[in-house]
Amino acid sequence: MINVSVVGAQGRMGSHVVDAVNSAADTQLALALDAKDDLTAITPDNTDVVVEFTVPSASLHNVLTLVKQGVNVVVGTTGWTDDKLAQVTTALANAPRDNQSVFIAPNFAISAVLADHFAQVAAPYFESAEIIELHHPTKVDAPSGTAIHTAHAIGEARRAAGLGDMPDATTTDGGSRGQVIDGVHVHAVRLRGLNAHEEVLFGNAGEQLVIRADSFDRASFMPGVLLAVRKIASGAFPGLTIGLDRFLDL
Amino acid sequence: MINVSVVGAQGRMGSHVVDAVNSAADTQLALALDAKDDLTAITPDNTDVVVEFTVPSASLHNVLTLVKQGVNVVVGTTGWTDDKLAQVTTALANAPRDNQSVFIAPNFAISAVLADHFAQVAAPYFESAEIIELHHPTKVDAPSGTAIHTAHAIGEARRAAGLGDMPDATTTDGGSRGQVIDGVHVHAVRLRGLNAHEEVLFGNAGEQLVIRADSFDRASFMPGVLLAVRKIASGAFPGLTIGLDRFLDL
Amino acid sequence: MINVSVVGAQGRMGSHVVDAVNSAADTQLALALDAKDDLTAITPDNTDVVVEFTVPSASLHNVLTLVKQGVNVVVGTTGWTDDKLAQVTTALANAPRDNQSVFIAPNFAISAVLADHFAQVAAPYFESAEIIELHHPTKVDAPSGTAIHTAHAIGEARRAAGLGDMPDATTTDGGSRGQVIDGVHVHAVRLRGLNAHEEVLFGNAGEQLVIRADSFDRASFMPGVLLAVRKIASGAFPGLTIGLDRFLDL
Amino acid sequence: MINVSVVGAQGRMGSHVVDAVNSAADTQLALALDAKDDLTAITPDNTDVVVEFTVPSASLHNVLTLVKQGVNVVVGTTGWTDDKLAQVTTALANAPRDNQSVFIAPNFAISAVLADHFAQVAAPYFESAEIIELHHPTKVDAPSGTAIHTAHAIGEARRAAGLGDMPDATTTDGGSRGQVIDGVHVHAVRLRGLNAHEEVLFGNAGEQLVIRADSFDRASFMPGVLLAVRKIASGAFPGLTIGLDRFLDL
Repeated sequence: MINVSVVGAQGRMGSHVVDAVNSAADTQLALALDAKDDLTAITPDNTDVVVEFTVPSASLHNVLTLVKQGVNVVVGTTGWTDDKLAQVTTALANAPRDNQSVFIAPNFAISAVLADHFAQVAAPYFESAEIIELHHPTKVDAPSGTAIHTAHAIGEARRAAGLGDMPDATTTDGGSRGQVIDGVHVHAVRLRGLNAHEEVLFGNAGEQLVIRADSFDRASFMPGVLLAVRKIASGAFPGLTIGLDRFLDL
Repeated sequence: MINVSVVGAQGRMGSHVVDAVNSAADTQLALALDAKDDLTAITPDNTDVVVEFTVPSASLHNVLTLVKQGVNVVVGTTGWTDDKLAQVTTALANAPRDNQSVFIAPNFAISAVLADHFAQVAAPYFESAEIIELHHPTKVDAPSGTAIHTAHAIGEARRAAGLGDMPDATTTDGGSRGQVIDGVHVHAVRLRGLNAHEEVLFGNAGEQLVIRADSFDRASFMPGVLLAVRKIASGAFPGLTIGLDRFLDL
Repeated sequence: MINVSVVGAQGRMGSHVVDAVNSAADTQLALALDAKDDLTAITPDNTDVVVEFTVPSASLHNVLTLVKQGVNVVVGTTGWTDDKLAQVTTALANAPRDNQSVFIAPNFAISAVLADHFAQVAAPYFESAEIIELHHPTKVDAPSGTAIHTAHAIGEARRAAGLGDMPDATTTDGGSRGQVIDGVHVHAVRLRGLNAHEEVLFGNAGEQLVIRADSFDRASFMPGVLLAVRKIASGAFPGLTIGLDRFLDL
Repeated sequence: MINVSVVGAQGRMGSHVVDAVNSAADTQLALALDAKDDLTAITPDNTDVVVEFTVPSASLHNVLTLVKQGVNVVVGTTGWTDDKLAQVTTALANAPRDNQSVFIAPNFAISAVLADHFAQVAAPYFESAEIIELHHPTKVDAPSGTAIHTAHAIGEARRAAGLGDMPDATTTDGGSRGQVIDGVHVHAVRLRGLNAHEEVLFGNAGEQLVIRADSFDRASFMPGVLLAVRKIASGAFPGLTIGLDRFLDL
């Protein structure tokens, strides 16, 4: 049985994590804390893995504190920069216990992580590739971080394969062709009723490959969170690990 | 049996029209002419309906000549302006025979015409609407004329229904949100392997309606051309008629 | 302000209706009752329209009682037979007040109602048509009532247009071609993560038209419920009215 | 420059192969033969690789003859059984030259081969999986061989991962749930206008992954044929190799 504490337990994601930890057969809830609570209550005596879902402004401080407490951390908060990641690596090097782990994932939806991976694998074999991401209309940034990540993955794979520019004869356009990221046109749709969706289109003469990931609600992230908790609890990933794809058999 | 002459018979569309006229049970080919041929060979004695598929720079002259010859014309060439249309109307008023007809359609694909119509009908009932059009990468204009037409149809229907702006919290965007036409975000994809496709997305809280028209090749226009030939040959549409939707029971 | 009472207020749909009535600017909640409550508490003095969302075994009795109470009823419960509908019509003929209304809808999702209508309009213009419906895996019946309804609508429209059988050269099949309803092949998918979705595919040589309705959750039914409440409260639909399409400008 | 001969050069696929070989910068056409021609005209002096696209009843004899001639063969004809493959293996063991190659692929569309592979990789991570294949209505078998292959790939991947049956509460069905192959529901659509398409749907609570391959026409197979010609000409695949996935970096 894995003892899991949750930091940000009353937040929108954290409350789902509490439910998921309570429901799974091999996990049980240790402490459920929130922003204002004292994180030093979390110790190796009561907790195997902490799941941290708070806000970018608080997350680094939380993770550094938890590492110093001697516990492993699974982080769902976004906003990690190279500098912040370096501070986590340093903290882990000075951690009180051997083989402590921190895992950070920009996306816990298994479908999204697989779609991103498949896009990278498929990219060398097609003349054309474009990305359409679709989200709820209360999202403030466009395109999504996931779409940007996928665009770079496709761009890199094409360069590695020696592919040149994609065919595009467009001479007249008022903005409909979208944003070009690493040579890949990215389109962002905002539509009431949708949640978080990404579609990657690949084309050759006479054929198309479409890879689409739909996240309909936050429940979609829980299989990924539990997978990370189990992998980190196993002790097989000491140090800093980034990205759910590391835990999939790809 | 309807006698059909084709102007532009060796062109990409015209050659399909010749095949379609030869294949249909109720039509037969009269004259098959090309750009350099003398159109005055076409007369009411040999032809009930002429199908004209040439280029924008030649089409007006062709149509005026054919009207003066006393025959009915179905026009598939694009590029018609209000001024050109007015010249056709005047020619028809002075035509040698009563009830002569000219029919002009920007799009002969029945699926595209229906999609455009359905988008207009659905528009008043949804908070959000966006358009994605997808074409082969040798197309020079973006977005497509069809997408622009659909965007205006949605915009007008929303205004008539008293709907305000669509919800959109986007504050950061480098162009991924596409081109806004009459309040509707339009996205243009260019992908090798595709031909001409349009997808209209409508959304309310918890629900989505998607209307998609795919034209895989030029064969897709022939049912619409034959429908127009039959309707014009029937004599029920004297004068100038615009748009295939006029012949559908909508 | 329209006074709305809800019968079945603690049910899965009814609780959403209570929220929707409380949220809308032009409606307010009168009484919120449940199965065991006395419906005679609902009278014209406190209620303009009752929304009834219970179970098929209770709904007829509830509606007859409410009509006798002199109030208008919007019914979301399913399972209505011709015999049951006849009893409602008789009750309305003997109702205590003039112009009392009962409205019954098999589906309150506007996207689904529009998709069904569009399928009927498009059907005469295509050689082929098939239906794919997709639902959560806890649904016990396949295909969905909505898909059966759409299949019959397409079948009737094809017969009215004089179309024959659809082309299908299949000679070997172990069941993959689905269920044929009124000449239309219907396919039912059951997938964890989905809710209620229907896709209608139409095809001619070289072209396809796709109409898809997605209902992601029960919130999707509330715009339709509120639309019905407003139309019935207006007094413009005395007697029995069936189907949300009656309230759309189609 | 790779010298390529084509057997079945006037067939529907073979004529595309001749065009592709003539168009590519690194291949040139040697001999273009048909069913009735003498295959012993093909020798290592004039040919590096033969592409064979004929009919199942002729293909084994053709391949055995070509192997005896000392040339490498890329085979696109279908209908290979274990017994036929064993005869090819024996022929290769007794071939006149060292390291002769025969390559057989059930599908040369890169998008279809990738979709099949991705479905296998994704299968262990989802509760539900279903397949929809869509083809032109002149196809005689349903479901397609590709869909059957994908169903088995998913079934095996689920067993290897220890997954049980998919959730499915259906109690009433008249055939709409499709054909169950290795535990996977497979649905076959036949629609005028379509060519060859496969869509694989995966679902977990709150999320969906969709992988779709579209083959719009026979041109879609040529990148795969040329890839096979190049790989076989390289000499890196002596003996019998089966499946285009062997040449992709998966």
